[in-house]
This record gives sequence, C-alpha cells and structure tokens, in this order.
Amino acid sequence: MHVMVLGAQGMIGRKLVAAIVAGGLAAEALTLVDVVTPDVPAGFLGRLRCLALDLGDDGVAERLVGLRPDLIVHLAAVVSGEAERDFDKGYRTNLDGTRALFDAIRRVEGYHPRVVFASSLAVFGAPVPERVEDTHLLAPLTSYGTQKAITELLLEDYTRRRVFDGVALRLPTICIRPGLPNKAASGFFSSILREPLRGQPAVLPVSEEVRHWFASPRAAVGFFLHAARMDTGKLGHRRAITLPGVSATVGEMIEALRAVAGNEAVALIRREPDAVIAAIIAGWPGAFDPARALSFGFQADNDFAEIIKVYVEDDLPNAESPS
Amino acid sequence: MHVMVLGAQGMIGRKLVAAIVAGGLAAEALTLVDVVTPDVPAGFLGRLRCLALDLGDDGVAERLVGLRPDLIVHLAAVVSGEAERDFDKGYRTNLDGTRALFDAIRRVEGYHPRVVFASSLAVFGAPVPERVEDTHLLAPLTSYGTQKAITELLLEDYTRRRVFDGVALRLPTICIRPGLPNKAASGFFSSILREPLRGQPAVLPVSEEVRHWFASPRAAVGFFLHAARMDTGKLGHRRAITLPGVSATVGEMIEALRAVAGNEAVALIRREPDAVIAAIIAGWPGAFDPARALSFGFQADNDFAEIIKVYVEDDLPNAESPS
Repeated sequence: MHVMVLGAQGMIGRKLVAAIVAGGLAAEALTLVDVVTPDVPAGFLGRLRCLALDLGDDGVAERLVGLRPDLIVHLAAVVSGEAERDFDKGYRTNLDGTRALFDAIRRVEGYHPRVVFASSLAVFGAPVPERVEDTHLLAPLTSYGTQKAITELLLEDYTRRRVFDGVALRLPTICIRPGLPNKAASGFFSSILREPLRGQPAVLPVSEEVRHWFASPRAAVGFFLHAARMDTGKLGHRRAITLPGVSATVGEMIEALRAVAGNEAVALIRREPDAVIAAIIAGWPGAFDPARALSFGFQADNDFAEIIKVYVEDDLPNAESPS
Repeated sequence: MHVMVLGAQGMIGRKLVAAIVAGGLAAEALTLVDVVTPDVPAGFLGRLRCLALDLGDDGVAERLVGLRPDLIVHLAAVVSGEAERDFDKGYRTNLDGTRALFDAIRRVEGYHPRVVFASSLAVFGAPVPERVEDTHLLAPLTSYGTQKAITELLLEDYTRRRVFDGVALRLPTICIRPGLPNKAASGFFSSILREPLRGQPAVLPVSEEVRHWFASPRAAVGFFLHAARMDTGKLGHRRAITLPGVSATVGEMIEALRAVAGNEAVALIRREPDAVIAAIIAGWPGAFDPARALSFGFQADNDFAEIIKVYVEDDLPNAESPS
C-alpha cells in the first residue's frame, strides 16, 4: 500500500508516520507532505518521498494525486485561532486546498483511494446539550469550524458519488501536546499540564469550570490507523464521525496533574483570563455520546490520568530543556 | 431601498417581484437578474434593471455587488435532479456562484447588505426522526442538498464576521407549482394536482404513503418578504431557518384534490413507480417542528385544502391551455 500523509510534519503527523513505519499499516511506499520538508522517518525500508508543498497552491493537488496513493491521510490545516485572524488564509488552506484535492481525485478515472480527513469538534457550536449526540446540528462558531464542517459535507457527497472512500474524524482536543505552544485557541489545555510537568510556569485563560473533550496523541494516532484499516461499508453515507474521548473540566485536569506532580507543579499555573479565548472555547461542547464511533471500534483513553501518563511516557523524555 | 433578486425569472422570483411591486417592500430601485432576461414587472415606478447574467461566470458577482443593493434575495439555483446528473454544473452554480457573491460583498468596505438565501429541506437526510427538530443534523443525500447546506454554513460564518446580514430559508417543497414540470425530483408533487385540475393526465412515481412538507407559492413569497423586513438581531448566529409548512402524504394530497375536483380528476393520476425519484425523495423528511421559524413570525398555509385554493385563485386562471 502507498500511504500519503498531508501535514506529515505536524505533531500528529510525525507520530502517525512513526506508527505506520513501526507496522501500524502495511505501507510499501510513503509520501510525506507538509509546507516544510517533512523529516525522514527512522527505519522505513520502502519507497519514501518527503515533499515541501502547500495544497493551497495551484497544481499541487494534481501533482500529489498523480502519485496515486492508496490511502491519503489529510491532517494539514490552518489552526483555529489563525483561521479566525486571517480569513483568506483559513478558507484558502482549509477549504479550497482540500476541495482541490478532492477534485483532483475526481478527475482521475478509475482511481478510488481511501481519504481519512482530520475534522474537529469545532464543527459544533451553540446550542449544545450537556452531551452531544451523533445526530446533533453542526453549528460552528468559528471560521475554522465552518471550514471543517463544509469539508465533511464535501467528503460525504464525494464518497456517495464514488469519487473516493472518505472518512472524516472529529478529533477531541489533543492533550497533552508536546513541544511549544501553537496558535490554536485550545493550546492552553496542554500548556497548563505540559509546562508544570517540566517545572515551567503556564497561563490559564479560562475558568476551572470549563469542560472539554480530550484524547492523547497516542489515542489520536490509533483513530487514524483504525480509520485507514476499517471496513467503511459499515459507515453508510455518514462518513463524519465524532470520536470518543475523555470529558474533563479544567479543575479535574489540574487535580490529575496534582496527583502526578504535586502541589508545586499546580502552583506554576497562573490565572490570566482572556475574553477572546474564553469566547471561542464557550462555543465548544464539553461532552459527547459518540455511539457510532464506539460501534465502529474507535477507542479512547480510559481517563485523564492515562492522558498524563501517555505524555510522561511518550513525550516528556524528549521535551526541550527550558532555554 | 434598492432590492436585487437573483433568479428573478423563476416561478418564485416572478411572484416575489410582483409582490414587491405591489408594495410588499419599500423598493425605490429593483435589479432583476436571471440567466435569461427577466420580464419587466407591470406597474413599477422606480428605477429598474433587468439583467441576463450567470452568477457562476467570472466577474458577474463583482458587477452585481457594484450596484450596491440594500437587499439581495438569492433564489438562483440548479435544481436537485439536474445537480445530481451534472456534478460540475451543480457545484459551479449552487456553491461557487454563491460564494463568489459572498466574497464580492466582503471585498467592498463599509457595505453590509441583507442577503436572503433560498435553501431547502434537502439539507436533511437519513437518519430523520418522524418530526425534525431545529437542532437536527444536516445530512444531505444529494449534491444539491450538500450545496445548500454548505451555503448555509458560509452564510452563517460571513454574517458572524459582519460581511453581510444573512438569512437562509429552508423552504418546504412549493406546491402547487404553476406552469410546466421542471427538472426537480420533487416536481411530481405539483403535477399530480396541477394537471388533473386542468383535465390533464399526470404521473405519480412514488407510493401514496410518502409524506412530505409543503408550502404554497403565496406562502413562499410571504417567507421572503418577512425575511427581508424582520429584525435579524433575534436570530443570533443561527441564520438558517427551517420554515413552517403543511405535512401531508401523497394519499392526503389526492383526497384534497378529490374534494375540490372530484373522482374524474383523481382518475387522471397514473401510477408509474420510478426508483431514482423514490430514492431521492426517501432521503427527505416528511414533517418538522419549525419552532424557531414560528417564534420569528414566519407563517405557513393552514392546510392542504388552502394550498389547492391558492393555486385555483392565483394560477389556474393563467394556466396555459393544453396544446
């Protein structure tokens, strides 16, 4: 199988590529694409391409589709905060680039790859019940969420019309993200744990009552591998799937941190309310009933303690030292 | 007020324009646009433009927006059956043309018109409960429904970002449509009544158990006038509205016809099952709970008898004689 990963140099992209190379998928060829040249993964013995390309640029979608991957995992996106600040960039990358990919596939006769697309719980917005069911309205409150919801609709229509075999995964917020903060409005969910685990201060911009829906990077990689391998016939025409996660309040996250790293770690969290971030987060639901995903075999972390444990095992040993 | 109607030569377009000219809106200027030159409406004393333009063509959106209408009523669309047969045409007109309009508005600083967009109940699809609530998932089963759902999402995001003041109306199926059959999959709902009322035979391609959601052309015109005049502040960020209608089965429609026009009229309906049409219709819900629309003052016909009465009063006198 020839596997193409778009957004391969992102955090999930790199972990997914490592998992594929470790045998998660039977990949004889790997094409890794990002706006910067993706790193060469260690230990891959098949045919490898690492390409620095922007899907939003003319001709890129055609060029990539011309390589005829059997599976395309599309993780590339402008994140929520940036898509809100830069209207044109968000629509160009998150909507037009993805649609160009879908249309490039459509123009190749007899080609029918599987396309696994990273969507987001930002497709939901007010009103939201305490637990969001699989039949709940998509009502995004950000341009990012709008772009993800539109892409889901396109993916379902193109799949129904047999252009490709699409699956859209509405990922929980990934926590704990390793590395440095990114521009996502949800970034603080990771930094209030990651920084204190490394003895560094962190900023909490919302209240401890905020409830949210989480998955570890390890669980996220598992979702993509499962979507790549699963029998998609079970999905019918509804190809966008709300994934299982761990529902936790900020207060519960902080208590999980205290259990692992003690009061000194918790004392490193500084409250600095940010109305812009609070307003974006307020539109996101805190808990879901991901019945369809569970019936299709997608598996979440067990609890928030496990989410912290995954970070300590997978990422803390490689964390950059404070400068 | 300068009012622009896109799709002005369509059935609803012509009736809406007549209602505007009759005083339904305080219009000092009217710009009527369609792919064929719109008819000059009788009795309009303000400034009038009748333009034959295709919104999907380069530069058309900019040209129209350059006229700075205060209100844009966007009715132009490739209908469902045609959008299903011709993938490119459907996406070009129903999605790209509309997005070009939205973006043209965005590029004009200080311009903030009201945009009233004709959406459709085709944004819904399986699974559907017996009555669809306002918070139910959009899960279109046609490319047409996909294009309408995507446009709703764009309209809500552009409205939230203060590009324009948008309202999307999910119209019930309009019944009884005057004139000749069009290419919509829903066309038979009108022809099984319209043709027999004129002594002509008609074809019924689905079973009498099929339940659907209807509004007369007169009610539809009322929806657009109300959306043009209403206080949109009440809508918040949810600008797509499922409109009230009359829920009826094909069997109930036929009984309403029998009450008005007798057994001879009913005898003109010939059963000819059509699997393609039945499959498209099967994805459309039969009844809704349009609580939001009712709270905003949108008004449906009272019952199916009224829907037939509206046709007899408004359209039967002008019906073309059978050739």
